[in-house]
Amino acid sequence: MFAVTILGNNSALPTLDRHPTAQVITCNDQLMLVDCGEGTQLQMAKYRVRRSRIQRVFISHLHGDHYFGLIGFINTISLLGRTEPLHVYGPPELLPILQLQLDVAGTVLNFDMHFTPLTPEGCGLLFREKDLEVSYFPTDHRIPCYGFRFELVKRKRRIVPEQARQYEIPSAFYSKLGEGADYIRKDGTVVKNDWVTLPPPKGKSYVYCADTRYNEALLLPHVNGADLVYHETTYLQDQEARAWDRYHSTSVQAATLAAKGNVKQLLIGHFSSKYQEVEGFLDECKPLFAPTDIAREGVTYLV
Amino acid sequence: MFAVTILGNNSALPTLDRHPTAQVITCNDQLMLVDCGEGTQLQMAKYRVRRSRIQRVFISHLHGDHYFGLIGFINTISLLGRTEPLHVYGPPELLPILQLQLDVAGTVLNFDMHFTPLTPEGCGLLFREKDLEVSYFPTDHRIPCYGFRFELVKRKRRIVPEQARQYEIPSAFYSKLGEGADYIRKDGTVVKNDWVTLPPPKGKSYVYCADTRYNEALLLPHVNGADLVYHETTYLQDQEARAWDRYHSTSVQAATLAAKGNVKQLLIGHFSSKYQEVEGFLDECKPLFAPTDIAREGVTYLV
Repeated sequence: MFAVTILGNNSALPTLDRHPTAQVITCNDQLMLVDCGEGTQLQMAKYRVRRSRIQRVFISHLHGDHYFGLIGFINTISLLGRTEPLHVYGPPELLPILQLQLDVAGTVLNFDMHFTPLTPEGCGLLFREKDLEVSYFPTDHRIPCYGFRFELVKRKRRIVPEQARQYEIPSAFYSKLGEGADYIRKDGTVVKNDWVTLPPPKGKSYVYCADTRYNEALLLPHVNGADLVYHETTYLQDQEARAWDRYHSTSVQAATLAAKGNVKQLLIGHFSSKYQEVEGFLDECKPLFAPTDIAREGVTYLV
Repeated sequence: MFAVTILGNNSALPTLDRHPTAQVITCNDQLMLVDCGEGTQLQMAKYRVRRSRIQRVFISHLHGDHYFGLIGFINTISLLGRTEPLHVYGPPELLPILQLQLDVAGTVLNFDMHFTPLTPEGCGLLFREKDLEVSYFPTDHRIPCYGFRFELVKRKRRIVPEQARQYEIPSAFYSKLGEGADYIRKDGTVVKNDWVTLPPPKGKSYVYCADTRYNEALLLPHVNGADLVYHETTYLQDQEARAWDRYHSTSVQAATLAAKGNVKQLLIGHFSSKYQEVEGFLDECKPLFAPTDIAREGVTYLV
C-alpha cells in the first residue's frame, strides 16, 4: 500500500471544519507524517491514524500552520511510552525550537529523536530504505521551504522467460538475474544479464510541493511523471496577483504544472480561509487537468 | 459580568472530546485567557469567543498542555489584523520560545506584545486596572507554576443615608463620600467620612489554582473566601499516591481545600485521559463540598 491520508487542507487561518496542513503517508508498513499544523494529533485521533506507528516526520517550512502541532505530537507519543526512534526532517531552526520547549518542561523523551536539517545545499536524496527513496527540493516561498518526493522504487529487473530458457539458465538462478547478475555457464562462457532481462518497471511516486509560488523551473523536474502530486492552491485564479505577493499559487497554476509535468493525478489544498466552499477550485482545475481531486480531510488517496 | 468560560478541561494527553487546559475570563468589557493548550483557538471558534477581544493572556507554567496553543493564537490574531496591544504573563522562558517561533517565520506582529515574566520573587499583585486586581502565587508542581486570583474590587464606601441626612450633608457630596472624603461644614467643623459610611462591600473573586499537588500552606491563603475556585483533579481519590508522584491532586483533595477555604463554589478539571467519564469526580467531591461543578467545555460559570 502506498497512499496519502489528508489530515488538514487549510492555509494559515484555521476554520472550524478545515485544519492546517498535515498528511500521513502510508508506505507498506511505514507511516510518515508530512507537515504538522496545530491540532494534528487530534486529527489523527479523529481519523484513527495510529500515532505510535509514525516513524518519520517531514516539516516543509517554519510557518506555523505547517509545524505548530509537532511539539504536541512529540510530547504525546513520549507520554504514551514510545521507545522506537523518531526521525524528524526540517529546517535547521526547528531543532532548537523543539529542544527549548522540551527543556523548559523538564521533558526527557522516552525515545531517540534523530533530527536531519534540510538545507538548500543538501537538496537531493534524503534517505533510502528498502524500496523507499525520499528526496527533497526547494520551493518558491517567502522563507526556506522544501517539497518532498516519495518514490517506491522497483529494483528487480524483469526476466524475459523465453530468452532465459533459450540461454538454458536454470530457474534457481532467476532471483540473481533479477538483481542484475550475469550467468556463467559451466564452460565459462558468460550470458550477459541484459540479454535475458529488461530494466525494472517504473516505481510509484508521490510529490508534495508544500507552499510555493508557481515556478516551473524549480518544480517541473520534481513532479515530472509522478503518479500523484500535491500542489497548493491557496487562491482561485482571480487572485493571481495576491497569490504571487504572498508566495502562493492558484488553482489554474497547479493544474498547469500538473499538465506540463505529465502527472497522473493532482491533489489540491491549502485553501485560504476566505473560501467557505472549495468546490470552485475543482471547476477551475479540471478544464486544464481533469484528474484533479480536492485533498479532503480524512480521505486516503492511493498513489 | 464576571464569569469563566471553559475551553479545555483535560490533562496532558488530549482526547477527542476533552481538550487541554484553557479558560476565558470575562470581566465587564475585558476578556482574558488563562492557559492556552493546543487547539485553544479552535475551541474559541467553536464556542464563539471573540479572539480579538482578548487583551491579556496568563500562562501558569510551561507544560505543553497549558501553552502549546499560544503561538498559534498569537499568529492568528496578527494575521487577522489586530492592532491593540496584547499582554502576556508567564514564566520567563515563554518569551524566547514565542520570539524564536516568530523570528524563524519572519513574522512581525501587527500589535505590541507586552510580556511580564512571572517569578517566585515577584508573586503578589500583578496589575490593577479599574475595578480589577489580579495577583499570582506559586503552586506545588514539578516545574515553576503559578495560580492567579482575579478580584473585582468594590471601591465605593457605602453611604448610610440616615446618618448622612442627620449630619445635613448635601446629596451632591455623596459621590465624594463614596470615595472616602470627609465633609467640611460652612462653619469649619468636620464630618468624618466613617461617621456616615460603611466600608465598600466585598468584591467578587475567582481563583485559578493551575496544576498542583494538594498543598494547604501554599494555596489556602489565596483561595480563602473566594466566590469561585478552580482546582485541578487529575485523579480520583484511589490514585492519591500517583497524584502525589506526578505533582497533581485528587477529587477529595480539591474538595477538602475548598471546604477549608470557605469557598463559595468549586470548579474541578484537568482530568486524566484514563477516565472516559468524569461524573465520578463529582461523586467524590460533593460529600465533602456540595457546591462543586465539573468544568465543562463550552460552559460559562458566573463568579
